Amino acid sequence: MSGTRFTPINLKNLSLLIENDNLIDWMPACDDFTSIRGARMTSRSTSHSDLIAATALDVRAAIRSGAYTGHTAGLAAGKLQCNLAILPERFALDFLRFCQRNPKPCPIVGVGDTGEASLPTLGRDIDIRTDVSKYRVFRNGTLSEEVTDISDVWADDLVTVALGCSFTFENALLRNDIPVRHIEKGLNVPMYRTNIDLVPAGRFGGKMVVTMRPIPQAQVAQAYEISRRFPQAHGAPIAKGDPAQIGIADLSQPDWGDAVEVRSGEVPVYWACGVTPQNVLLDAGLPICITHSPGHMLIADVAEDAETTILKTPKTTN
Amino acid sequence: MSGTRFTPINLKNLSLLIENDNLIDWMPACDDFTSIRGARMTSRSTSHSDLIAATALDVRAAIRSGAYTGHTAGLAAGKLQCNLAILPERFALDFLRFCQRNPKPCPIVGVGDTGEASLPTLGRDIDIRTDVSKYRVFRNGTLSEEVTDISDVWADDLVTVALGCSFTFENALLRNDIPVRHIEKGLNVPMYRTNIDLVPAGRFGGKMVVTMRPIPQAQVAQAYEISRRFPQAHGAPIAKGDPAQIGIADLSQPDWGDAVEVRSGEVPVYWACGVTPQNVLLDAGLPICITHSPGHMLIADVAEDAETTILKTPKTTN
Repeated sequence: MSGTRFTPINLKNLSLLIENDNLIDWMPACDDFTSIRGARMTSRSTSHSDLIAATALDVRAAIRSGAYTGHTAGLAAGKLQCNLAILPERFALDFLRFCQRNPKPCPIVGVGDTGEASLPTLGRDIDIRTDVSKYRVFRNGTLSEEVTDISDVWADDLVTVALGCSFTFENALLRNDIPVRHIEKGLNVPMYRTNIDLVPAGRFGGKMVVTMRPIPQAQVAQAYEISRRFPQAHGAPIAKGDPAQIGIADLSQPDWGDAVEVRSGEVPVYWACGVTPQNVLLDAGLPICITHSPGHMLIADVAEDAETTILKTPKTTN
Repeated sequence: MSGTRFTPINLKNLSLLIENDNLIDWMPACDDFTSIRGARMTSRSTSHSDLIAATALDVRAAIRSGAYTGHTAGLAAGKLQCNLAILPERFALDFLRFCQRNPKPCPIVGVGDTGEASLPTLGRDIDIRTDVSKYRVFRNGTLSEEVTDISDVWADDLVTVALGCSFTFENALLRNDIPVRHIEKGLNVPMYRTNIDLVPAGRFGGKMVVTMRPIPQAQVAQAYEISRRFPQAHGAPIAKGDPAQIGIADLSQPDWGDAVEVRSGEVPVYWACGVTPQNVLLDAGLPICITHSPGHMLIADVAEDAETTILKTPKTTN
């Protein structure tokens, strides 16, 4: 652990955690990182680099054992990573309706049975109470605790909903030689509140959050085409060009994440963002709701470029 | 109406309705067409050909007024047509989970609010109680009635689920010069029970039903690639070649629809079929459940090749 330098930065709207000049975590400013620094630094007995070649199953095992509590970017390459929302059954039908109506910010990739911690369509032997490296527990719309295990919060009426994440299409852009500036720069993607109304369902609704990536003009059409192939991961962009058209006043002032330069010959391109459902859940003020912590995703066994997000278990019986 | 000749054929497993040598309707043999022939023939004051150039909105209006009660194949070209499942709210969460886990036979394209007859994400001014030309009402797993309006069956606890249908990818195959034999021959697509287990949810489960289309060997890869672009309409095939691998004993004996010839140089290709959720609903024995009648689909305003099935209503507010 020698040489590791953690720097918490608590801004007005956002708390950042910087590790050796890399932003490794962020959260809305309902809490800050100061209080969790000690826990993070002492519990990490397996490092990100130790796991870089591990399978999804092995990464989940390291997380379940408590040996790894870090972020999941770059782990289990080629496997689908998921945003997580766990909520009481009585809100689950409306939340699924909300996600179905807003498929670009909220692409549903898995739904658990009520009170059941496994997610067999996403991976073998998943236990959603232990297999994510960091969780946030919200009570009545306020962050209550940030933990590495939710076994003692788990209840028989909880339903797990897994949603796709942008890692999937970013990997596809990179494979096709389309540059992704924030990755090049080791920054977090810039995220913005927009004026785009979500289609509501029950108590769920609000405005869409987007990410922005500057794309060279000549590659914009290709970026649309490639990301459209991943409806399970936000799909094609929702807009490009002038930020004012979607209610963004200043690209240099993202609401979350880091500003990145838009160079001459580049077009700012906007994708629906997985922070959208997190904000919507927060605003809904549910008595309890659990999400992953940003960057600490659920890693599935499903390939990120599979046609569906249902684990292929060829099973036929007569 | 002169020259129109209706021939009901009631087989052991299937009832067919033939109009001037074209199969225009079929249903499982829990009922037969004899009893509804009179109603069909007298109420049809607008013909299929009258509506061939009409918009989706106009077709729905003709259906709502009672002027048109026929099938929807070929109407509102380019618009998404949907399978329909209406069920009590207390079963809706499990049914949505079931569909999410079986996205190829059961692609969800729209979900209504509880007790609400509109489907604003699928179309303007849809009233699901009147805008489908023929419905089947099932009670306790048995066909109870076949009607052209469900206003008097509608209840405050009902939830509408719309699912994609194969018209979408068939149109795309034809546009790409891939022949579709049953369309060429004016037949219904052959459908088969398989031994492929569905992923269950609550009381919903069973075996997948597939359709078969013979595709020239040289075009099979293209047929996969084209239909994969339509996850909202069953997506890529689930198998090709030997029918025994998925538990089909004899291609010349489909469980529903018509047998079609597989010629030398052609490969039988199998797609997941929208009859799957209908069978699953029937087997679940719900106290009440309403579906469209086969071929009498809900016509949406959404383009069948749109990236998502959410009607684009660019709406931003500050």
